[in-house]
Amino acid sequence: MKIALDAMSGDFAPHSTVEGAVLFTKEIAETEIILVGKEEVIREELKKYSYDKERIRIQNAKEIIEMTDHPVEAIRNKKDSSMNVALDLVKKGEADACVSSGNTGALLSASQLKLKRIKGVLRPAIASVFPSKKGQIVMLDLGATADCKAEYLNQFSSLASKYAELLLGVSSPRVGLLNIGEEVGKGNELTREAYTLLQTNQSIHFIGNIEATQMMEGKVDVVVTDGFTGNMVLKTAEGTAKLITSLLKETIQESLLSKIGALFLKKSFIHLKEKMDSSEYGGAIFLGLNEISIKAHGNSDANGIKNALKVADKFSKINLIEQLKKVIEEEAN
Amino acid sequence: MKIALDAMSGDFAPHSTVEGAVLFTKEIAETEIILVGKEEVIREELKKYSYDKERIRIQNAKEIIEMTDHPVEAIRNKKDSSMNVALDLVKKGEADACVSSGNTGALLSASQLKLKRIKGVLRPAIASVFPSKKGQIVMLDLGATADCKAEYLNQFSSLASKYAELLLGVSSPRVGLLNIGEEVGKGNELTREAYTLLQTNQSIHFIGNIEATQMMEGKVDVVVTDGFTGNMVLKTAEGTAKLITSLLKETIQESLLSKIGALFLKKSFIHLKEKMDSSEYGGAIFLGLNEISIKAHGNSDANGIKNALKVADKFSKINLIEQLKKVIEEEAN
Repeated sequence: MKIALDAMSGDFAPHSTVEGAVLFTKEIAETEIILVGKEEVIREELKKYSYDKERIRIQNAKEIIEMTDHPVEAIRNKKDSSMNVALDLVKKGEADACVSSGNTGALLSASQLKLKRIKGVLRPAIASVFPSKKGQIVMLDLGATADCKAEYLNQFSSLASKYAELLLGVSSPRVGLLNIGEEVGKGNELTREAYTLLQTNQSIHFIGNIEATQMMEGKVDVVVTDGFTGNMVLKTAEGTAKLITSLLKETIQESLLSKIGALFLKKSFIHLKEKMDSSEYGGAIFLGLNEISIKAHGNSDANGIKNALKVADKFSKINLIEQLKKVIEEEAN
Repeated sequence: MKIALDAMSGDFAPHSTVEGAVLFTKEIAETEIILVGKEEVIREELKKYSYDKERIRIQNAKEIIEMTDHPVEAIRNKKDSSMNVALDLVKKGEADACVSSGNTGALLSASQLKLKRIKGVLRPAIASVFPSKKGQIVMLDLGATADCKAEYLNQFSSLASKYAELLLGVSSPRVGLLNIGEEVGKGNELTREAYTLLQTNQSIHFIGNIEATQMMEGKVDVVVTDGFTGNMVLKTAEGTAKLITSLLKETIQESLLSKIGALFLKKSFIHLKEKMDSSEYGGAIFLGLNEISIKAHGNSDANGIKNALKVADKFSKINLIEQLKKVIEEEAN
């Protein structure tokens, strides 16, 4: 297996990406990593490590797509960017998967453009894991398709079901439709229509509507929603966590006693962060495309990159795409 | 002024409602409270307090709408419920406002049915305050109208702008359109259409799209969205706060040191809870109706009920409804 890694994108690149690649090769046998980006910069960074030179090579790419770049324009204008070139390697069959922690919109556009949708796939979806009280769950769509039809949600749920099975190791994952009430008939037009489709979908284990609060209690393995709502939920959860952290920090500063208390709790706060952290699952995937394209979190450290590479490697080896194609074919029959 | 209080609804009723009414009369002069519910139960509860008997009276209502009741059926079948009777008092002009901490769906349906919409109002919206880093902000719709058109959002923003001005005391409140990206053109069909309407709305100070994370940083005073998204954001924020609390509690139990640390931090945790708490703003209001109907939080204590009564009293005195009617009239011209 060969994985193309966009070595220049992400908050801590190229340090995080190069170290992540090295860590990966020490943990996983055989699979090769192609570091895509400015050759001289990556070469300099690689000097810091001892690594198997047969398994890490560099593919030069002179440009970088920034987080602030306009997605579609960046893809069009920066043809020689690390992101574009990494995806080109997959397109040409020179790599089995692509990993990038760059601009999500750009990566989505480029992945769609270069890798194309699986035949029969109506719309792509971004799937990722989300923390719950009982462990991680798979959620989609997180923003690929803002305006969805009920049929899209139905297909998302079939794809995500297979994905969750393989990623989390759950057989017959429980699928919930994200909604503003549990009862049948609740919600907006889209969720009401989607409910009736999901109910008769033979390739999933549908358990009904689920509210955001229940989702976080871990009552499902897969949560399906449209890209607008999914992205909103993701950002609301992030915003709430940030707000709580920031207000708590403020109140802790109010007395010496609370400052000492916070020191005593340092380990607990770290544990909490770990429990909320989803980086061991390697980030998000664009479901519905012909090849594996993985978006690692923008603030991934070397460990986060290593985990994203491991997920890309695992899904290349078990041929995720073929399995998803089968899901789509079965649905068509 | 006279306020009808549904004395039987809410997690801690009738204790919370009766005590809340007594506290209200000690803080605010003149306004009378009509406690609506089972007479003998309320009379028994009232015995615990010394209060001005001229200002608190009981209106008997034999039934109670439970949180688990189906909203529309409950309204239809339990005609003599405390909620229905309280709203009837407002409808008949025997009270100036209604406060209830009961079943939201039932209260919304009953309020719409009995109080009717202001002429020209396209759809009603639930507005409430939401915590941010810089204090409370007003958000709507939180679930009254799941499927919205752009015109509804535009009207919501005009009504909410006036409401925020009066509730929070902000002049020319900054209005943001909740969206999954800041840039013009981002989002789904609804938000893109709403953006163009809001841009030319003369009665508001529109600052553009706002993401949930920025909203919680306090970059706006009013956040407008459809009822599906608003309800989703509300529940996601609640779920995230609960998840963090529950995971933190678990990790604190892991060592003696962290247990001691948590004791030292008790005050900080209480301060944090206060900062996140919106009960001093009295709960949610159904904007767009001909009378004032306020939904206090289901878990309101006596203080929460007192605050809801204070908001109802304030808005009756400054004649909120007339001011909202003017907004609608100006919009029509």
